[in-house]
Amino acid sequence: MRIAQVAPLWERVPPPAYGGIELVVGLLTDELVRRGHEVTLFASGDSQTLAKLEAISPKALRNFETDVDPTHFYYLYLTLEMNRVCELSSEFDLIHSHIGFPFFPCANLTKAPTLHTIHGTIPVSEEHLWKAARQQNFISISNNQRRNDLGLNYLATVYNAINTKNFPFHPQPDKPPYLAFLGRMSPEKGPHLAVKIAKRTGLLLKMAGKIDPCDQQFFDTEVKPFIDGQQIQFLGEADHQMKCDLMGRAMATLFPITWQEPFGLVMIESMAVGTPVVAMKMGSTPEIIAHGRSGFLCNNLDECVAAVESLGEISRTDCRDHVVANFGVRQMVDGYEAAYQQLLQQKFMGDGHTKTIHQLKSFQRLSA
Amino acid sequence: MRIAQVAPLWERVPPPAYGGIELVVGLLTDELVRRGHEVTLFASGDSQTLAKLEAISPKALRNFETDVDPTHFYYLYLTLEMNRVCELSSEFDLIHSHIGFPFFPCANLTKAPTLHTIHGTIPVSEEHLWKAARQQNFISISNNQRRNDLGLNYLATVYNAINTKNFPFHPQPDKPPYLAFLGRMSPEKGPHLAVKIAKRTGLLLKMAGKIDPCDQQFFDTEVKPFIDGQQIQFLGEADHQMKCDLMGRAMATLFPITWQEPFGLVMIESMAVGTPVVAMKMGSTPEIIAHGRSGFLCNNLDECVAAVESLGEISRTDCRDHVVANFGVRQMVDGYEAAYQQLLQQKFMGDGHTKTIHQLKSFQRLSA
Repeated sequence: MRIAQVAPLWERVPPPAYGGIELVVGLLTDELVRRGHEVTLFASGDSQTLAKLEAISPKALRNFETDVDPTHFYYLYLTLEMNRVCELSSEFDLIHSHIGFPFFPCANLTKAPTLHTIHGTIPVSEEHLWKAARQQNFISISNNQRRNDLGLNYLATVYNAINTKNFPFHPQPDKPPYLAFLGRMSPEKGPHLAVKIAKRTGLLLKMAGKIDPCDQQFFDTEVKPFIDGQQIQFLGEADHQMKCDLMGRAMATLFPITWQEPFGLVMIESMAVGTPVVAMKMGSTPEIIAHGRSGFLCNNLDECVAAVESLGEISRTDCRDHVVANFGVRQMVDGYEAAYQQLLQQKFMGDGHTKTIHQLKSFQRLSA
Repeated sequence: MRIAQVAPLWERVPPPAYGGIELVVGLLTDELVRRGHEVTLFASGDSQTLAKLEAISPKALRNFETDVDPTHFYYLYLTLEMNRVCELSSEFDLIHSHIGFPFFPCANLTKAPTLHTIHGTIPVSEEHLWKAARQQNFISISNNQRRNDLGLNYLATVYNAINTKNFPFHPQPDKPPYLAFLGRMSPEKGPHLAVKIAKRTGLLLKMAGKIDPCDQQFFDTEVKPFIDGQQIQFLGEADHQMKCDLMGRAMATLFPITWQEPFGLVMIESMAVGTPVVAMKMGSTPEIIAHGRSGFLCNNLDECVAAVESLGEISRTDCRDHVVANFGVRQMVDGYEAAYQQLLQQKFMGDGHTKTIHQLKSFQRLSA
């Protein structure tokens, strides 16, 4: 199958540190190539891929210095990317977009059927747009993420994946034990609640994650005052190695979110290295954590504290197995291949119909 | 001919005050309908048109109050508009876009050929994008505006127009005489130079125009200190009535630009009401002003001052006639109709070729 993968350009594929979408696109693309598909990846020029790379920007956009309004700058390059995809679209059997709503207009016109993976949450300001394009083809990354209120035409849920080979299993946590928190320092991810859980259990907490400009104030008032370098430690941004190490040696990873998380790669990364996850029961978490077997789903802080105290019940091997069985690259690419087949079959049936009428017309013309 | 006109959404069509693009789109659209074309106008829902209106936003975007980043907000609605155009694109023989680069990707795919009028100047930050799409079909609004360095495929230059009926002729200027300046209070439009010309000639200057946030500092330091309510007057934003009155009663309109003006509607509005224009010779001005007959083209402030002193040579009737003969709606729509015909002919020849090959293939298949 000739497949176009259309990645966002903010980070390269795969990303050096942050960039969940680019990570997933990278795994998907390379595995599709291994399975014999002819894949073209539209991405920043510093991307590394087994597919044919269509380099849109010389490097990841986050590494550009520019005076142009950043939103405008991003749309400029996204337009350049879409223009290239559309120029080449007749060369593909299928187009898989990861860039969200900007690709909606083109998807009405490409000969090859187009499918969008929705990687985030749909903000209120975009709802009218998604509703208008609801008959296009969508993939959700968790069932909870689905916005059935918008009437979106979902083909399937395909969970994100990690390459478990890159996440070494840690059979034992460190002594003395500690809790880990990994994620953006934003209210939705709940680093302030992680601090509360650590305080109430008396356990050490090691945190890592980036601070976006819009979250600086939250971090300064709700998290920073508690960082003492002793019980509550903040280690800055984590690269892959540090992430594996920080979570792998922890007794548990805290995931005390306050929002409808659409997927949450950190949970599967943590379980893959053998560390159970203590999470709030909301968004995708009930689909990702096997409650009592690879972590705990909690309804409030009290339950989180109780969960931390029950961690002895959890087998670290079970945590890893849960990821290997459900969130590996194989499962994800199986899911996408099935969706691609479904889409092409729909198109084939549509085409068949058109062809019949067309052939009939040609025949009538020739015999007239 | 079934034509789609794709307007920007910031202002309604036609706009209540500012909005040169929407003004031109309105005139073009209505005249095409009068000439018997089947026109669909994609625009904000408060637009008024003889065409079939496809309302994208309930009202002009400038009238929305929103917390969303304004650039993002604009792209959201532009995407909604493009999505609708693409959904309906098979219903048109031709698509005429006035929204600039965002429509490039779709234009590769629409069955109906697409033509873009370039209404502004192409900033450096967009050049790579225009180069990438250089083989699409472009209309320039002056010859000087053309960016041949980018290799753009221009079909024609079609000058902007005004409905001269809406611009009453003023055979005599007021006594005592005064100079008029109309335009944004930005360095490019030269209101600070207009002040200098007034000071050096000792004449009264009446100015009107909007102050964009980005120009506030310029206005405060370079223009405002000279406004004394006597010799130098600033009247705020002008609506149509005030504009006609302000320019029509002036002895001349000053157009002391400092940039490559792509067109400059104010010049033809001024000449239409009978008032000559004293302009810097740059950008489009030599194509729009008949030097010595409908105004003067000057190379510096000294020449502007000398021009003001030579205004007696100019006949106000000649000024109006120059607009009626060259910048009326008839001429503009003639220009666009010719470009549309050219484009359809190209497409027809392309289609014809395809059809021949295709019929041959069908025949081979049937007789095999």
